[in-house]
Amino acid sequence: MKKLDSVFYPKSIAVVGASRHPGSVGHSLLANLIDSRFQGVVYPVNPKARSILGIKCYTNVIEIPDVLDLAVILVPASLVPEVLEECGQKSIKAALIISAGFKEVGGAGIELEQRIQKIMRKHDIALVGPNCLGIINADPDSSLNATFGTQMPEEGNIAFISQSGALCVAVLDYAKESNIGFSKFISMGNKAGLNENELLLYLKDDPKTDVILMYLEDLVDGRKFMSIARSITSHVQNPKPIIALKAGRTLIGAKAASSHTGSLAGSDRVYDAIFEQSGVIRGNTLEEVSDYVKAFSSQPLPKGANVAIVTNSGGPGILATDTCIQHGLKVAPFPPRLKKALRQHLSEAVSLNNPIDLIAEAQHEQYEATLREILKDKDLHAAIVILTPTAFTDVEKIAHAIVKVTKENSKPVVCCFLGVYDVSRGIDILEAHGIPAYRFPESAARALAEMTRFTQWLQRAETGIKKYRVEKAKARNIIDSVKSTGRSFLLEHEAYAVLQTYGFPVIPYAFAKTSGQAIQAASQLGFPVAIKIASQDVIHKFDFGGVKLNLNNVSDVRKAYKDINQSVRAKNPKARILGVVVEKMAPPGKEVILGMNRDPQFGPILMFGLGGIYVEALQDVTFRLAPIRELAAKMMIKRTIAHKIFEGFRGEPPYDTAAVEDCLKRLSQLVTDFEEIKELDINPLLVFEKGQGCTTVDARIILQS
Amino acid sequence: MKKLDSVFYPKSIAVVGASRHPGSVGHSLLANLIDSRFQGVVYPVNPKARSILGIKCYTNVIEIPDVLDLAVILVPASLVPEVLEECGQKSIKAALIISAGFKEVGGAGIELEQRIQKIMRKHDIALVGPNCLGIINADPDSSLNATFGTQMPEEGNIAFISQSGALCVAVLDYAKESNIGFSKFISMGNKAGLNENELLLYLKDDPKTDVILMYLEDLVDGRKFMSIARSITSHVQNPKPIIALKAGRTLIGAKAASSHTGSLAGSDRVYDAIFEQSGVIRGNTLEEVSDYVKAFSSQPLPKGANVAIVTNSGGPGILATDTCIQHGLKVAPFPPRLKKALRQHLSEAVSLNNPIDLIAEAQHEQYEATLREILKDKDLHAAIVILTPTAFTDVEKIAHAIVKVTKENSKPVVCCFLGVYDVSRGIDILEAHGIPAYRFPESAARALAEMTRFTQWLQRAETGIKKYRVEKAKARNIIDSVKSTGRSFLLEHEAYAVLQTYGFPVIPYAFAKTSGQAIQAASQLGFPVAIKIASQDVIHKFDFGGVKLNLNNVSDVRKAYKDINQSVRAKNPKARILGVVVEKMAPPGKEVILGMNRDPQFGPILMFGLGGIYVEALQDVTFRLAPIRELAAKMMIKRTIAHKIFEGFRGEPPYDTAAVEDCLKRLSQLVTDFEEIKELDINPLLVFEKGQGCTTVDARIILQS
Repeated sequence: MKKLDSVFYPKSIAVVGASRHPGSVGHSLLANLIDSRFQGVVYPVNPKARSILGIKCYTNVIEIPDVLDLAVILVPASLVPEVLEECGQKSIKAALIISAGFKEVGGAGIELEQRIQKIMRKHDIALVGPNCLGIINADPDSSLNATFGTQMPEEGNIAFISQSGALCVAVLDYAKESNIGFSKFISMGNKAGLNENELLLYLKDDPKTDVILMYLEDLVDGRKFMSIARSITSHVQNPKPIIALKAGRTLIGAKAASSHTGSLAGSDRVYDAIFEQSGVIRGNTLEEVSDYVKAFSSQPLPKGANVAIVTNSGGPGILATDTCIQHGLKVAPFPPRLKKALRQHLSEAVSLNNPIDLIAEAQHEQYEATLREILKDKDLHAAIVILTPTAFTDVEKIAHAIVKVTKENSKPVVCCFLGVYDVSRGIDILEAHGIPAYRFPESAARALAEMTRFTQWLQRAETGIKKYRVEKAKARNIIDSVKSTGRSFLLEHEAYAVLQTYGFPVIPYAFAKTSGQAIQAASQLGFPVAIKIASQDVIHKFDFGGVKLNLNNVSDVRKAYKDINQSVRAKNPKARILGVVVEKMAPPGKEVILGMNRDPQFGPILMFGLGGIYVEALQDVTFRLAPIRELAAKMMIKRTIAHKIFEGFRGEPPYDTAAVEDCLKRLSQLVTDFEEIKELDINPLLVFEKGQGCTTVDARIILQS
Repeated sequence: MKKLDSVFYPKSIAVVGASRHPGSVGHSLLANLIDSRFQGVVYPVNPKARSILGIKCYTNVIEIPDVLDLAVILVPASLVPEVLEECGQKSIKAALIISAGFKEVGGAGIELEQRIQKIMRKHDIALVGPNCLGIINADPDSSLNATFGTQMPEEGNIAFISQSGALCVAVLDYAKESNIGFSKFISMGNKAGLNENELLLYLKDDPKTDVILMYLEDLVDGRKFMSIARSITSHVQNPKPIIALKAGRTLIGAKAASSHTGSLAGSDRVYDAIFEQSGVIRGNTLEEVSDYVKAFSSQPLPKGANVAIVTNSGGPGILATDTCIQHGLKVAPFPPRLKKALRQHLSEAVSLNNPIDLIAEAQHEQYEATLREILKDKDLHAAIVILTPTAFTDVEKIAHAIVKVTKENSKPVVCCFLGVYDVSRGIDILEAHGIPAYRFPESAARALAEMTRFTQWLQRAETGIKKYRVEKAKARNIIDSVKSTGRSFLLEHEAYAVLQTYGFPVIPYAFAKTSGQAIQAASQLGFPVAIKIASQDVIHKFDFGGVKLNLNNVSDVRKAYKDINQSVRAKNPKARILGVVVEKMAPPGKEVILGMNRDPQFGPILMFGLGGIYVEALQDVTFRLAPIRELAAKMMIKRTIAHKIFEGFRGEPPYDTAAVEDCLKRLSQLVTDFEEIKELDINPLLVFEKGQGCTTVDARIILQS
C-alpha cells in the first residue's frame, strides 16, 4: 500500500471539527462524506456534541476505538497543531487540513504552518492543505467526498489537482454540465505537505486516472516537476496527458536580472519551457483546459493531423476550418477514392469538399454514411462533426448515427451541435457515449488540435543528453583563478578560454597588455582585426568606447589602442585597464545570441534568439532548462518565428544550424558542470552557411558572487 | 419613410409559398409571423389551400385586395422569378426570398439569380436573400419574425447581420441563455439585393439599435464598407460599435501576386486593415463576438483602461488579471485614498491589493462597499466582479448589491459567477438588470478590454487625408512615356523620377548609357557609388549580378560597368540593356520597406514593414487601404511589433519615423492618383536618425498591363 492510499482510500476517517450547524464547513464536509456513500467508517470529533447527523461523536482522535487512516481537520488554525500532534500519537497516516489562517495570512500564520510541518515530519504524516477545499475520490471502492460544499462528480478518468479551491468548484460545475467524470480531485491549498510532484507520482500509477488536469500558481520544484511530468507524458505503455492552466502569465518575476539575458528570462516564459520540455499541454484559459480534458478523456488520440469536417451549414464549417489551420491541423481536399465513395451516398447538391457541407436537408443517413467513409479512409485521422438543425432534422437520430460510426473506429470524433431548435437531447446522447460536444465550432477544433499535438509529442524521436568530451579541469582552473582575484566577471579572453575548453568555436584572438603587444598580435592573427578593452570595471564595452572594429593595419591598431584607453579613462577614470583583446574580424554571418541565466528557483535556463536588437524588440527567443536533450536543442531554434531565415530562405543559403545546436548542447553541459556560472551570453554567435560552422565573437560570463 | 422600412416595418406581408404542412418551411415561417404577434396584416399565398392557420389564402399576390409592403417568397427556386415579377407588378416595395437553389448551387442557379436581380432592378424592389433564414424585427411596433424555425428573441438593442443562417441560429441560442435582446436580425443569404452596406446604413439611423454584430464571409464592396462602417463607429453624437466575425481567416487569397509585396498582401490581413481603419472590432471566434455584444449592449463604455478586480477567491482573480494585462488593460495598485476608504469596510484579513480578494467570508455588505468605493474613485474606470460562493454566501444578495452600486455610477461592471453552489439565480438578477455575467473570468476581462479599445478609438485624434502639392503632370508624363514604349515595368531611374515628383527623398542618382557616362556621373555624385543595371528584361537585378555596391573610384566603376554587362548577358543574352543607374552610396540607416499592391477587389493596399528578409520571415508588416489618413500612417508603423526599434531602443538613437509617415502618405496620394500603378515597392527606404529624414535606395513600379 502506498503512502497516499491513506489519503485517497482510507478505511477510516476522523473528522475533527465536525459541526452540528448546517451551513458550517464542519457540517457540510461531514454531510458530503456521508452523502457520497463513503465505503469506510467516519468518526466525527467534537467535544461539545454527542452526535452529528446521527453519528456518534468523540472528544478527540485519541479516544476513537479504531485504527484511523485519515484525519480531516477543520478546527480553527490555532488549534490545528495540537490536533495534528494527537493524530501523530494516534499513528494516523494522513491528514487533510481544511482550516485557513496559515501561510496565506502572513505573520503568525507562517509560523503556524511551520509548526504543523514539523509535526507532520515528526510523525511522517501525508498532509494535504492547509487552506484547501478538500479531496474527492470518485472510485466506487472509496467513494470519498472530503470537501465542503462540493457535490460528488460522476466517476470518470480525469484527475484534477488544483492550487485554488474556487477553480476546483468552477471546473466541477463545467464538468457536471458536460457529463465529464473525475477519478480524483485534490485541492492542494498551501502545499505545506503534499504538493503537485507527489500527487503526480501517485496519479501516474493510479489505474483510474487517464488524464491529469492541473491548475497551478507556482511550482514547488520545477525540475522535479519536469522529470515527473515527463515520465507520465512519455510513459511507454501508458502515457497520460497532463493539461495545465498556470496563472500569473503576466506577472514578471521579481528578480529582473541586470544582464541582457536576464531581462528576458525569469518570466512566465520559463514555465512555457518547463511545460514544453515535459510534454505538458498548457491552456490559456480555464475554458480552454476544460474543453481539452473533455476530448482527451473520452476520445482516442489521432494518429496524424489530417482532419475531415462534416457539417450541414457553411458558416460553422469555415470557422472550424480556420481554427484547425491556425493550430496546425490539416484540412486537405479528400482523396479521389473517398470522393467516389461519398458520391454513392450523397446527392449532387452536395459538393465533396473538406469541410463537407451536407446542406440543410441532411439526415442521419447522410451523416452516418459520410462519417463512416471518412473514418475508414487511411489518410484521414480525425473528424469534426457539426450540426445546425432545421425543423426537419432528427437530431437524436443523427446523434445516434455519430455514436454508432465513431464506435466502429478508433479515430477521434468531436462534435458541435448548434441551434435554437433543441439540440440538447442530441448532445446528451453524444456525451453519454463519450463523444465530446462543444458549444462553438472553434472549441471543437481547438481541442482536437491539442490532441494532435500530444500525438506529435508521443511520436517524437526520443533523444538523450549528449555528453561531450571537454577539458573540464582547464575550465575549472580559469574560473578558480578569476575567483581568486575576487572578480565575479570574466574578462573576454578568459570567457573565450572557458568556452574553448568546452569545444565552442571562438574567433582567433589574443590578449595584449600594451600597444606593442596588440600590434604584434594583430600581425600574427592577420588583418583586419578588432580590439576590445579588457577591464573588470567595464562590462558594457561598447558604451565605454572600448571597442574598435575593422582595423586594417598597424597604424590603425596603434591609434585604436590609444583611443580606447582614452575613451575608457574619460568615462571611468578609476577603471582598472588590464589591456585589450585583439580579435580577427570574422567573415559575415548571421548573428544569433545564446544565453544562460541561473534562476534561483529553476536553475540554469538557456536562451536562444536572433542577434542584434531584434532579440529584444521582437522577443523572438526560446528558453529551455538545462540540461537539454538533443531534440530540445533543435526545438530551441525551430520554435523561433525567424527560424526560417536559417533554412535557405528567399534565395539565401541555408545556415549551419547544426553547429548552433552543438553550441547549445555544449552550453548546457558547461552550465550544468559549473554551478558558479550565474550568467553567460554569447552575443553574437556568428553562424555561417551550412557546413561552415559558427564562431563566437563576443562572450560574457558572470559568476555567482 | 426609408426604402428599408418596407423590409423591417411592413404594414402588410404576402407569404408566397405558405404551406399547410407542419414542419415545412412555408408553414414554420407563417406560424412564426403569427406567433410573433406581427402588428400588420399577413396574407398567405398558396393556390392549393383555402386557408392556413385559419388565415384566408390567395392564389397569387396580384389578387390580394390590399397594398403590400413585403413579399416573403418560399416557392421552389425555378418559380421565384415569376413570383417576383408579380410582386413588381403589384408594386410591392420589398421582397424576402428564403428559397435556396441560386448562386450557391452554381450553373443554372447563377443564371436564375441574375434573372431575379434584373426583375428586382426593374421594379426597384428592396430584396433580401435568396437562400436565407429570414429577418426579424423585435421592435414591438412591428414585432416581425419572418424566419423559419427561429424563435423570436427578446427585444434589445443589438442588430445582427449574418451571412450564415446557421450562425444566426447559434447566436440567438447563446443570446437566449444570456438574456440578450435584439433589435433587428437579418440573414443576408446570397446578397443578391441588399448587402451589408445598405443594411449598415439603415441600422446607423435605427433608433432601436445601439450595437451591430456581423458575421461575414466576404465584403461586397470593401471600400464602401469602410466608409459606412467608419461613419457609424465615429458618429459624433451617437457612435455605435460594430463587432464582426469574419470567417476564412486562413484561406489565402487566390491571386498570389508575383511581386514581393503581393505575396504578403491579398490575404486575410487586408480584412484586418479594413476593420481597423473603420473602427470595427474583429472577434476571433463566435464565442468571443457573442461575449463582446453582451457587454457592449448593456454597459457604458469605460473612460479609460484602469480596471479594478473584486473577487472572493484568488485563482479566478489572477486569471482575470492575466487576461486584462494581455489585452491592454491596467490592473494597477489602488491609490492610498481608496485603500483608506476600503479599510473602513473590510477586515484586516483582506489585503487591499488589486485584484482585491474579499476572501471566502465576503457577504453582500463587503461586495457593495468595495464596489462602491472603487467606482467612486476617479482613477478607476471599470470593475470586474468575481464570485465563487461558499455555503455561507448569499448569492442573490450579492447580485442585488452589485446591481445597486452599478446603477449609482456610469462606469462599466462585468461579472463572473462561478460555482457548484447554484449561482444561476444571482446571474439572472445581474442579467435582468443589464449587468453581463460570464462563465469564465477570462471572458469577462476580454469583453471589457474590447470596450476599452473602442473607447480608445472614439478618443483618437481625428485626422484627415493630407494632400501634398506634387508635380502630378510630370509623373503623368513619365508614366505615359513608359506606356508608349509598351513596357509595364519602370526602369529604376524612371521609378525614382516618379517618386521625386511626389516629393519622396531619393538617393542622388544618374542614368548612364555608357561606361564613360557612368564614370562621369559617379565623379559628379561623389564616391562611393553603386551602379545598377537598367534593363526592362531584368526585374530581379541582384539575381542577375546587375548591382555593384561600394565603388570607391573611377576604376572600380569602369570594372563594375563591364562586369554587370557581362553577367547580365550571361544570364540572359537577349536582355535589352539600356545602361545603368549610378547612385551615391547612402549613409547607414534602418531599412524599411514601403509597398503597394492593387487588389482587384479592394484597390490600392499599402504595406509597411522592416526591410530585409525579416519582413517575410516574421511577417511583421502592416497593411492599410489607400488613401490613408494621417493617423493611419502613424499606426502602420506603430502596429508592427518591431516599431520599438525606431523609438530610441536600447541605447540606439530614435529614428525619423515622421519622415517615414510622410512617405507613406505621399505613397497613398501617388497610388490614388495613378490607377495604372499596379505594384510599387520601395525596398529599402533607409531611415536615418530623428530629424535626418530618410531616403529611397531602391524602387520598383509596375503598371497594369
